Amino acid sequence: MPNSFGKIFTVSTWGESHGPAVGVVVDGCPPGLPLDISDIQPDLDRRRPGQSALVTPRKEADGVEILSGVFEGRTTGTPISLLVRNADARPGAYDEMREKFRPSHADFTYQTKFGLRDHRGGGRSSARETTGRVAAGAIAKKILAFAGPVEIRAYVTRVQDLAIPDGADLAFPSLTDVEQTPVRCPHPETAAAMIRRIEEVRAQGDSVGGVIRCRVRGVPPGLGEPVFDRLEADLAKAMLSLPATKGFEIGSGFAGTYLRGSEHNDAYVPKGGTVGTLTNRSGGIQGGISNGEEIYFNVAFKPTATIMKSQQTVDPEGRPAELTGRGRHDPCVLPRAVPIVEAMAALVVVDHWMRHAAQNKVFKF
Amino acid sequence: MPNSFGKIFTVSTWGESHGPAVGVVVDGCPPGLPLDISDIQPDLDRRRPGQSALVTPRKEADGVEILSGVFEGRTTGTPISLLVRNADARPGAYDEMREKFRPSHADFTYQTKFGLRDHRGGGRSSARETTGRVAAGAIAKKILAFAGPVEIRAYVTRVQDLAIPDGADLAFPSLTDVEQTPVRCPHPETAAAMIRRIEEVRAQGDSVGGVIRCRVRGVPPGLGEPVFDRLEADLAKAMLSLPATKGFEIGSGFAGTYLRGSEHNDAYVPKGGTVGTLTNRSGGIQGGISNGEEIYFNVAFKPTATIMKSQQTVDPEGRPAELTGRGRHDPCVLPRAVPIVEAMAALVVVDHWMRHAAQNKVFKF
Amino acid sequence: MPNSFGKIFTVSTWGESHGPAVGVVVDGCPPGLPLDISDIQPDLDRRRPGQSALVTPRKEADGVEILSGVFEGRTTGTPISLLVRNADARPGAYDEMREKFRPSHADFTYQTKFGLRDHRGGGRSSARETTGRVAAGAIAKKILAFAGPVEIRAYVTRVQDLAIPDGADLAFPSLTDVEQTPVRCPHPETAAAMIRRIEEVRAQGDSVGGVIRCRVRGVPPGLGEPVFDRLEADLAKAMLSLPATKGFEIGSGFAGTYLRGSEHNDAYVPKGGTVGTLTNRSGGIQGGISNGEEIYFNVAFKPTATIMKSQQTVDPEGRPAELTGRGRHDPCVLPRAVPIVEAMAALVVVDHWMRHAAQNKVFKF
Amino acid sequence: MPNSFGKIFTVSTWGESHGPAVGVVVDGCPPGLPLDISDIQPDLDRRRPGQSALVTPRKEADGVEILSGVFEGRTTGTPISLLVRNADARPGAYDEMREKFRPSHADFTYQTKFGLRDHRGGGRSSARETTGRVAAGAIAKKILAFAGPVEIRAYVTRVQDLAIPDGADLAFPSLTDVEQTPVRCPHPETAAAMIRRIEEVRAQGDSVGGVIRCRVRGVPPGLGEPVFDRLEADLAKAMLSLPATKGFEIGSGFAGTYLRGSEHNDAYVPKGGTVGTLTNRSGGIQGGISNGEEIYFNVAFKPTATIMKSQQTVDPEGRPAELTGRGRHDPCVLPRAVPIVEAMAALVVVDHWMRHAAQNKVFKF
Repeated sequence: MPNSFGKIFTVSTWGESHGPAVGVVVDGCPPGLPLDISDIQPDLDRRRPGQSALVTPRKEADGVEILSGVFEGRTTGTPISLLVRNADARPGAYDEMREKFRPSHADFTYQTKFGLRDHRGGGRSSARETTGRVAAGAIAKKILAFAGPVEIRAYVTRVQDLAIPDGADLAFPSLTDVEQTPVRCPHPETAAAMIRRIEEVRAQGDSVGGVIRCRVRGVPPGLGEPVFDRLEADLAKAMLSLPATKGFEIGSGFAGTYLRGSEHNDAYVPKGGTVGTLTNRSGGIQGGISNGEEIYFNVAFKPTATIMKSQQTVDPEGRPAELTGRGRHDPCVLPRAVPIVEAMAALVVVDHWMRHAAQNKVFKF
Repeated sequence: MPNSFGKIFTVSTWGESHGPAVGVVVDGCPPGLPLDISDIQPDLDRRRPGQSALVTPRKEADGVEILSGVFEGRTTGTPISLLVRNADARPGAYDEMREKFRPSHADFTYQTKFGLRDHRGGGRSSARETTGRVAAGAIAKKILAFAGPVEIRAYVTRVQDLAIPDGADLAFPSLTDVEQTPVRCPHPETAAAMIRRIEEVRAQGDSVGGVIRCRVRGVPPGLGEPVFDRLEADLAKAMLSLPATKGFEIGSGFAGTYLRGSEHNDAYVPKGGTVGTLTNRSGGIQGGISNGEEIYFNVAFKPTATIMKSQQTVDPEGRPAELTGRGRHDPCVLPRAVPIVEAMAALVVVDHWMRHAAQNKVFKF
Repeated sequence: MPNSFGKIFTVSTWGESHGPAVGVVVDGCPPGLPLDISDIQPDLDRRRPGQSALVTPRKEADGVEILSGVFEGRTTGTPISLLVRNADARPGAYDEMREKFRPSHADFTYQTKFGLRDHRGGGRSSARETTGRVAAGAIAKKILAFAGPVEIRAYVTRVQDLAIPDGADLAFPSLTDVEQTPVRCPHPETAAAMIRRIEEVRAQGDSVGGVIRCRVRGVPPGLGEPVFDRLEADLAKAMLSLPATKGFEIGSGFAGTYLRGSEHNDAYVPKGGTVGTLTNRSGGIQGGISNGEEIYFNVAFKPTATIMKSQQTVDPEGRPAELTGRGRHDPCVLPRAVPIVEAMAALVVVDHWMRHAAQNKVFKF
Repeated sequence: MPNSFGKIFTVSTWGESHGPAVGVVVDGCPPGLPLDISDIQPDLDRRRPGQSALVTPRKEADGVEILSGVFEGRTTGTPISLLVRNADARPGAYDEMREKFRPSHADFTYQTKFGLRDHRGGGRSSARETTGRVAAGAIAKKILAFAGPVEIRAYVTRVQDLAIPDGADLAFPSLTDVEQTPVRCPHPETAAAMIRRIEEVRAQGDSVGGVIRCRVRGVPPGLGEPVFDRLEADLAKAMLSLPATKGFEIGSGFAGTYLRGSEHNDAYVPKGGTVGTLTNRSGGIQGGISNGEEIYFNVAFKPTATIMKSQQTVDPEGRPAELTGRGRHDPCVLPRAVPIVEAMAALVVVDHWMRHAAQNKVFKF
């Protein structure tokens, strides 16, 4: 099931950018969770295009409908079907995409894989598909608010070369910190520079990428299912399953490879009545299993492939062609990707929580 | 099934570092593949400890037995069970590990998750578990030698700050290029420096990490199952499921995030009668699906957690303790991890090849 | 994913009897299949309540919407989302079900399992859920019409003690044969008796059960994945996953256990240039794999649990209560279950076809 | 993974009849379970050939080795690998099977599916494969002895037409009741008749089939995952995945289809402080979920396909041939299948217990 994610708490997304609707089915949600649209809509609004001058002006109300699995305000343990109608479909705007493969998009590979494709707005490969992920992630987040509580906070830590300075990124930011600027970087000076950069490249019809950091605190020790379903392995898969991502690193990541073992190891210390680590280069996970420390990871997003410049390409017959950028364009996907990263992290944590309990908390000997 | 990987071509590993044996079951292998021990043993020998002065001197013959699934020299389509006996078990050497959690190892998290653990040599969290992965990967590689052929080549591209220079890493290296030095870096000058560094840190009882690059050529366009089972997502999961890995990047990776879209996009061009790209910052995958170009990715390995220095830790009761490093020690895991990375890449490609065909090549309308 | 079925061609149903809608997502459908509503609606109409005096008078238009996965009249290989709105919801009619557990229904077990339930019309446990299965099955049937072709024909072979006589059930019935009477028994005399019986028990507020036979011809040899995913094992699971089923038998079934081996074995003979069997007590499957002969099996359906008679039960507090049957009532579910059985059989065959090909038809050595 | 069963408590069997060994890997076993060979060997001995004059005289010691997942007498939560060497391999005795397809065996279908096969003793399709199931089932049974406790008892209820009389099968039989005769029928008079029948058909080189009943008590209400993974659906799949099975019925089964709803429904009554049913035609499962009453089901086993009589068949080129039965022969598989049925039932119950808990017992709102 290539369009499903999770083993026990499972989400299955469906829908194309310019079809009638996009949606998601959540199977395995625990029963009894209070849930209504107001739990889901806010994250959809954060993901929605047209929120600010920084992102695509595509207009979508993105009002979500709950079609099943909730009765009298509580989840029933049966599949939760969520649907969002596509409103602002402008198929005509995409006629050029039928005839020419957009560079670094999925047009060519979908055409080659399936032999045909819905070219309108990228069809299934459009980031619009992530609407369903965010809706499902909002449910997972609500579960985590009861459990622990676990808090998940993603934010833009770098746009091109503009990064939050070392040492300025220590405290766990609040949602308000993140939402205070449209670029969703909690460091105001850096955010201001990022915004200027994005406006600049937009004016030039160009685009930029960068890095989103995600931090998760409150995860109890024990989550993660080695040897293949290590917690960081499933986080890596979740993040690399997002459009435009090119890299993932957990804890010290690539930078940690410059250290020696004696510099890198996290010493264990007594901490608050239990065991903790003095440093946290492990990123809260050791041997694939959470250790109770904060989990943090970075995700690399490439510059948006859609640009308003002329580009060299080929047509479906393989003949050289020129693509002239037109239409709406998101010069930097990172701000809108922040709630998507949070959603995927929440899905991984909830699913692993349930898996861990199933093996370790049910039978006692 | 946390110890299984793959949807159709599935591998399930089992075994602890100091138990009687380690092994793997491969389910879903195509029938008719010529297979005997000589196809599997060479990669096990590359993974084996004690090959050179650079790696742990633990001695293991690692002779593999084929217990099922092969008849008269060919696979039968039934599960292939492979077993490697553990020979050099020195349980006494690990008594300290029973009483103290080794920093940045999985001792604490396994104990917390499961409530008990086989402490000897790390038990299930030991890299010895990867023996089964390498054995299964050898079968996958042999399949790929028939199909395409697809070639997979991993090598050490950086140890700490010692990296193959930019521009010196263009041609697809041969296996001989990689194997010519014990550090498995195909660039001789860099390899020599790496070897000196590893010997130096070993003498100091310390350890180093670095980066392995893996390149895959010959993969046809069309492999990868969006939206969740994107080819790079499954590669990321595969790599992050390996012990000691902290990061994964595909194509331009983290470095690509410094570019603008107009610099980063890969223009399509007619190529050899079909369609190719002028550059390959996508790393051979677009929209989660292979495009026929070379697939390449990097994997970050942290410095080995085992060091021969005194370290601060706690005991199972949470009391402060001091761990004094003893016994055998692998100052740099990267050379031995090269065949493991190749094995995981091969498993991903074969499984995706079969999945792609199942949906797209069976029924014609 | 308890609400998903199939490994490669996967269907996931969602929805409650009296929620806003029911639906299904089909993931893994081959691309290029011509598909529109007219392929799906006819089977939904066969499953629909209110078709005749024999079944429940609940009125549902059951008009299906295709929300994704189809572009310009062909499947695209992406998830196909199908939705049917619930029209004739009369929640007030079900108030008694909130307070009392209906005998031999799922009220008590859902309440116990999940701690709460949507009591209206049985909620998720209602046969209304099978709407999605039938819609997905129609797609599978269309695939099979191209492949082979494979034909699947289910029909009512017995209602209580009224059975098609031995020897009168040899030829493969046409769809017209089955549809000629509302009871969907292709043997006219038996059908007439069944209809009288059903009308009789309806008048008494009672219900009856019986047996549906399903026959599948045109399946090539080779489908079925031992040892656990034997073709008959997945058929058995598919059938026992339907509401009201109590038994499954393949080929000679329970009756065959009265024979000796020398009477039961199916001798191999040359047949039409290939190999066939002289008899077919195996039911077209040997060792879990199709052998090219007709596949046939029987499914037992219990008498409908809903009856218009007073029954003894308890309330959610466990106190004795009396349930007085009221509202709409289906005195015999078998006629409407015929297309459901066909749908499930089609889903099993298509999924196994793809699985078989994935392992056996992709790589050649 | 066609050779794996279960979602959380997963067993994967491997091995051929005349290969070096057969085995099983259990992934997902809860940690801390006391386990050694003495927990597993007794059921293997019950399954073992050569126990009595009623079954095949093939001699196998069937001594099981535990290769992983157990440390100092307790399971560790990691995969448990169990291995049984094949001892009594007489490959020469099977030369005829290479050239001729045995009627109603899997020779033809394996050959057709995979293009080649290990013909010796049926290879993978041999009942020898169930060794691994029984070994894994013994672990599941031990878990269930702690939980509940749940007791599982299977026994032969009918051989051909020789059945335990109606009304003589009420009390839950003890293991001693079942084991008191080699035919494993707890009703002594019926057992005696069965034994005579089996000896008679053996003398004639023929074989017989029959029915095994399995009863499970102590299962708490709530197990079962509708809509597809209903408890009875997974039991049906488990049973139809066994060699030689042709049918499954739960509760009133096929016989119940002769009743009216008013006769068939199980009235709810207060029972022991909770809720029970007055009758149990549902077989302990309603709506796919256990209701706390005893679960019981029947499994039909066809007469053994191997007979010592000349039979008509074809060779691999499709030419008519005559097969002359030779070698060892099991005139009735039912006695040896009793522990296999119990094992599969135990696997289903444990897996569902864990799945139920994962969704319903982990998060509280």
